[in-house]
Amino acid sequence: MKIIHSPRHLGHSGHVELMNGQVVPAFEKPERVAMILNAIGERPFGTLIEPAAHGLDPLLKVHDAAYVRFLANAWAMWTADGRDFPALPSFWRAPGMRTDIEPETIDGKLGHFSFDAGCCMVAGTWDAVQAAADIALTGADLVASGERAAFALCRPPGHHAHAGTMGGYCFINNAAVAAQSLRDRGAARVAILDVDYHHGNGTQAIFYDRPDVLVCNIHADPLQEFPYFLGFADEIGAGAGEGFNANYPLRWGTDYAGWGAALDAACARIEAFGADVVIVSLGVDTYKDDPISQFQLNSPDYLKIGARIAALARPTLFVMEGGYAVEAIGVNVANTLEGFLQR
Amino acid sequence: MKIIHSPRHLGHSGHVELMNGQVVPAFEKPERVAMILNAIGERPFGTLIEPAAHGLDPLLKVHDAAYVRFLANAWAMWTADGRDFPALPSFWRAPGMRTDIEPETIDGKLGHFSFDAGCCMVAGTWDAVQAAADIALTGADLVASGERAAFALCRPPGHHAHAGTMGGYCFINNAAVAAQSLRDRGAARVAILDVDYHHGNGTQAIFYDRPDVLVCNIHADPLQEFPYFLGFADEIGAGAGEGFNANYPLRWGTDYAGWGAALDAACARIEAFGADVVIVSLGVDTYKDDPISQFQLNSPDYLKIGARIAALARPTLFVMEGGYAVEAIGVNVANTLEGFLQR
Ligand SMILES: [Zn+2]
Ligand SMILES: [Zn+2]
Repeated sequence: MKIIHSPRHLGHSGHVELMNGQVVPAFEKPERVAMILNAIGERPFGTLIEPAAHGLDPLLKVHDAAYVRFLANAWAMWTADGRDFPALPSFWRAPGMRTDIEPETIDGKLGHFSFDAGCCMVAGTWDAVQAAADIALTGADLVASGERAAFALCRPPGHHAHAGTMGGYCFINNAAVAAQSLRDRGAARVAILDVDYHHGNGTQAIFYDRPDVLVCNIHADPLQEFPYFLGFADEIGAGAGEGFNANYPLRWGTDYAGWGAALDAACARIEAFGADVVIVSLGVDTYKDDPISQFQLNSPDYLKIGARIAALARPTLFVMEGGYAVEAIGVNVANTLEGFLQR
Repeated sequence: MKIIHSPRHLGHSGHVELMNGQVVPAFEKPERVAMILNAIGERPFGTLIEPAAHGLDPLLKVHDAAYVRFLANAWAMWTADGRDFPALPSFWRAPGMRTDIEPETIDGKLGHFSFDAGCCMVAGTWDAVQAAADIALTGADLVASGERAAFALCRPPGHHAHAGTMGGYCFINNAAVAAQSLRDRGAARVAILDVDYHHGNGTQAIFYDRPDVLVCNIHADPLQEFPYFLGFADEIGAGAGEGFNANYPLRWGTDYAGWGAALDAACARIEAFGADVVIVSLGVDTYKDDPISQFQLNSPDYLKIGARIAALARPTLFVMEGGYAVEAIGVNVANTLEGFLQR
């Protein structure tokens, strides 16, 4: 299995987030990738490769042009006001407010294009975001050209990003960009299986009215957990997409008994859908010691996750999402891939 | 003119806000009221009185019951998690997200019921908020019973608060609560004239589909300024309320020449409406040295504002909103009242 990686993620560092009423260093940090590379390096999984440049066109197939323009220009606008510290939004478009007018000022734009104070931008953010999208697209290329599987080691992650909204550490939805690329390269049916602890609200929203991309999400109940305002079981898709979105919300404290049952159900949906290819939004913040999460999976459980996904017997692209227990993230990712490859 | 004041606003102190990517002490602070009381005390305006308790029923006529329940319980829920520092929301309901399900956890509730990271709660917030509403209601009582005018020295302010959403330092919309009280006491037509630097998005939204309360707002262009996502000139009301909302957005740098012209236009609307009573949402953050605002009014200009409002010749309730240049806030408020009384 090829592992696609770029050191350009390192530019997205020193960023912060608002948590518990305080601005703190973001839990989503560069060390996460280093730990994954270390753990993968200890096992004979395959070759590490750099991504190929794909430009912005594939991003614009799932994201709004105004949003991509904002991402590209935000840091320059923020610093033009004399600010040399990380950019965070402070105000948002609540229900009942206008969504049709992009503010002129950078503070207004930050709110217009976001849904939380967890999408912080620094000087290297946009370059890292583009590299992450290229990583996912290069993985899609490999799978489209016949590889059984690939691992897109994306950072920053993507699954919280909507077509025109950043949030939850996510800017460009790497998995969605890859799914669209696979569709454009001939896959009739693409399934996205999101196993991150948090609901992949952006991925769901992007494909919500489409029958060609099935989105299955296993995640913490939004009644209890971020992103709170999407991820309920009654969200089944809309219009032509009705029946092509499946949510499996689980309560805090869920261990592998409950989690694995949801995985079996999601995999049955993917088989019934007849997916030509599977994209796994791979978050390992389901781990028992994750600092911001409340599930109870143990490291050996990730071997089982990988094996169950392998049993789908479809070309599979793993796209890295969350996981914040830096000590364990490498082992848990490597276990998932090992479980997949050993099957 | 009676001035209604309560020391209970002092409980809302030590709070913070997210600004410029950093958590800083809130610009909306107790010293604001002290400066106003000092300046008013130096002039023979009238008696300082305490508010009468009105309970929650008048608040529930313009606010959602679930929202009021949240405000009453939020601090207890926040501290039950072991947190003894100010509560700030971190995540919001972006367009496309669910608005129909209130999260179970306090972090989720904070996002569900807010639109920015400028509505911080501390131990004394809810008591101060109730006192501010009682101050506005007591002012409404005075005007309803025949007084020419009253000054409700509310703190925290209210005009950014929607029926079910806090933001912009505001929790309960004091002016809206007072307007509804005046309607319930027999005023057929109530006009709200919001002269705060920021658009009174909450007041607009609460009365947007009603023809009995005319809302006029003079404020910084939302293309440039908070609250960004409401306050455009094309927002004229909806349904039965069409034609009963008027916005006068003005560009950064506006001085009294431009500002006064908008005031004349708003006053003409109020006269044409035939208001039985006028509520002035009195913010003085239009002042040239306000630390978070970009208009260029000078202290003598507030005498003219008061005189122009007096020329409406209607019973008038002044309700305190914003103003953050602590050195000047007292003089500017006192000038407004003096200009009104001298006419
Ligand atoms: Zn996650
Ligand atoms: Zn203001």
